[in-house]
Amino acid sequence: MNNTLIFGHKSPDTDTICSALVYADLKNALGEEAKPARLGDISSETQFALDYFGVTAPEYIEKVDEDVDNVILVDHNEFQQSVDNINDVRISEVIDHHKVSNFETKEPLYFRAEPVGCTATILNKIFKENEVIVSKENAGLMLSAIISDSLLLKSPTCTAEDREAAYELAEIAGVDLDTYGLEMLKAGADLSDKTALDLVTMDAKEFTMGDSKVQVAQVNAVDTNQIYASQDAIEKEIEKLINDNNLELFLFVATDILENDSDALALGQAKGNVEKAFDVKLDEHNRALLKGVVSRKKQIVTNLSEQF
Amino acid sequence: MNNTLIFGHKSPDTDTICSALVYADLKNALGEEAKPARLGDISSETQFALDYFGVTAPEYIEKVDEDVDNVILVDHNEFQQSVDNINDVRISEVIDHHKVSNFETKEPLYFRAEPVGCTATILNKIFKENEVIVSKENAGLMLSAIISDSLLLKSPTCTAEDREAAYELAEIAGVDLDTYGLEMLKAGADLSDKTALDLVTMDAKEFTMGDSKVQVAQVNAVDTNQIYASQDAIEKEIEKLINDNNLELFLFVATDILENDSDALALGQAKGNVEKAFDVKLDEHNRALLKGVVSRKKQIVTNLSEQF
Repeated sequence: MNNTLIFGHKSPDTDTICSALVYADLKNALGEEAKPARLGDISSETQFALDYFGVTAPEYIEKVDEDVDNVILVDHNEFQQSVDNINDVRISEVIDHHKVSNFETKEPLYFRAEPVGCTATILNKIFKENEVIVSKENAGLMLSAIISDSLLLKSPTCTAEDREAAYELAEIAGVDLDTYGLEMLKAGADLSDKTALDLVTMDAKEFTMGDSKVQVAQVNAVDTNQIYASQDAIEKEIEKLINDNNLELFLFVATDILENDSDALALGQAKGNVEKAFDVKLDEHNRALLKGVVSRKKQIVTNLSEQF
Repeated sequence: MNNTLIFGHKSPDTDTICSALVYADLKNALGEEAKPARLGDISSETQFALDYFGVTAPEYIEKVDEDVDNVILVDHNEFQQSVDNINDVRISEVIDHHKVSNFETKEPLYFRAEPVGCTATILNKIFKENEVIVSKENAGLMLSAIISDSLLLKSPTCTAEDREAAYELAEIAGVDLDTYGLEMLKAGADLSDKTALDLVTMDAKEFTMGDSKVQVAQVNAVDTNQIYASQDAIEKEIEKLINDNNLELFLFVATDILENDSDALALGQAKGNVEKAFDVKLDEHNRALLKGVVSRKKQIVTNLSEQF
């Protein structure tokens, strides 16, 4: 039997964790052996979803063991967001909803990316294509992923397909979409026990823009001022990350889940590119309000890439 | 209305041409405007299929015009196999069955690659997913693509899905698979009117292996000796290609469609890698018989890449 491992990106978010769990379950239902894994800590938002639907988090791995035959990447394809020894493994599948970049294989594979708001929306389709019934637990996990990636269907990344899937899955999961969704987002936005290091790393992604390395970290909050109360400590952690990883830019984005705006902090040599990308002026604390910006993928990375 | 162009790789083969035609037709059936195109000359094998089913070849393009909004790549994803100005266009979709390499986009897209023997096999599935009836012409074109890519279902790249699709499509197209298939392959293997330059360029693909540029050209023949009667002229054309394109290796593969073997000619600094890859010795004419080797993708490129 093939030994297959399924995981999402580093700094896992709810879509990454839930998609790994759900897809492994689907594979098992299809008679294929597959195990979910994760490359980082579970966020409090994700933990809320797991607890709510009574599902155990996937096992943490630092690297892929030698006895693994295949890996399946969900919710990412760029190697710098993946496991450290990604170059040494055989990638048999990718299920993703991001742009394709810094990805390559030696052999043909099953690669499925669709321009929707969430990996789980694609998984929901794959259940149907394979005529496998979606359990209450899997529906709950996929719903949580869609709510998380779309900020309760409010992000510009959210497509009609995501919306349709969300309502369908809420019914199977037996929850009211808005009530459950806001509860879950608030659980994720409870940052009271987070250190400055937690805040800048809990959902950080690295991108290659032009020849530059850039990290964009995003946290959801009910009150962004509360986050910036510890701006000095946050800046210290970011400066360290910039030095350790040779980053040209670190953009820290605190997204207000009630107002659907983002309060961003930009540090690094290329911080001027943030001003150009969003037509804003950074204030004396290197911060700027990005009006209506909630999506890292569609509103931040796309605009920022063009400046490099 | 969006202006979308659909095309396959340079040095187009039957899968590339037929997939562009068929997918454009499917898009139109779904109410989306899309036009097929081609990046090179139609082979005599492909022409046989087009004539048989009464379909006109797609228009030749040298580059994508500025008024094109989106391009859809079929049967390839590597940029060096695509249109010259691929970096300046918006790729909205990829439908392919090759490894993923040297491909990247700025935005999320619909990327669908499956490890099957032929792009048309995937297209046949997409017809079903969209509940669009396959016409006799489209069935004939998809069948021709599968026969071509699988050498009449004999190549190791041919999967159960390809086989199933082929039999299903033969029925819709109203032809006997074996009779039609051999006729089509023989039409393609009629090389009597080909110049040496035709032979080395009619189905040549460029690959980046390690840091080296490698081209692998393949021709199907009923009698490979007939091809090598003009080996001197062929070598001259290859030497010119090596110089003009800074190739480390040019591997010319003459595949016997009746015996299912290949008689290969290797030129360039890295020709020793061919000996290592296939555990053969090149003779004094730089040639070697590759027993049972018929698939460039699965048997040649994979093995050869490992040596660079």
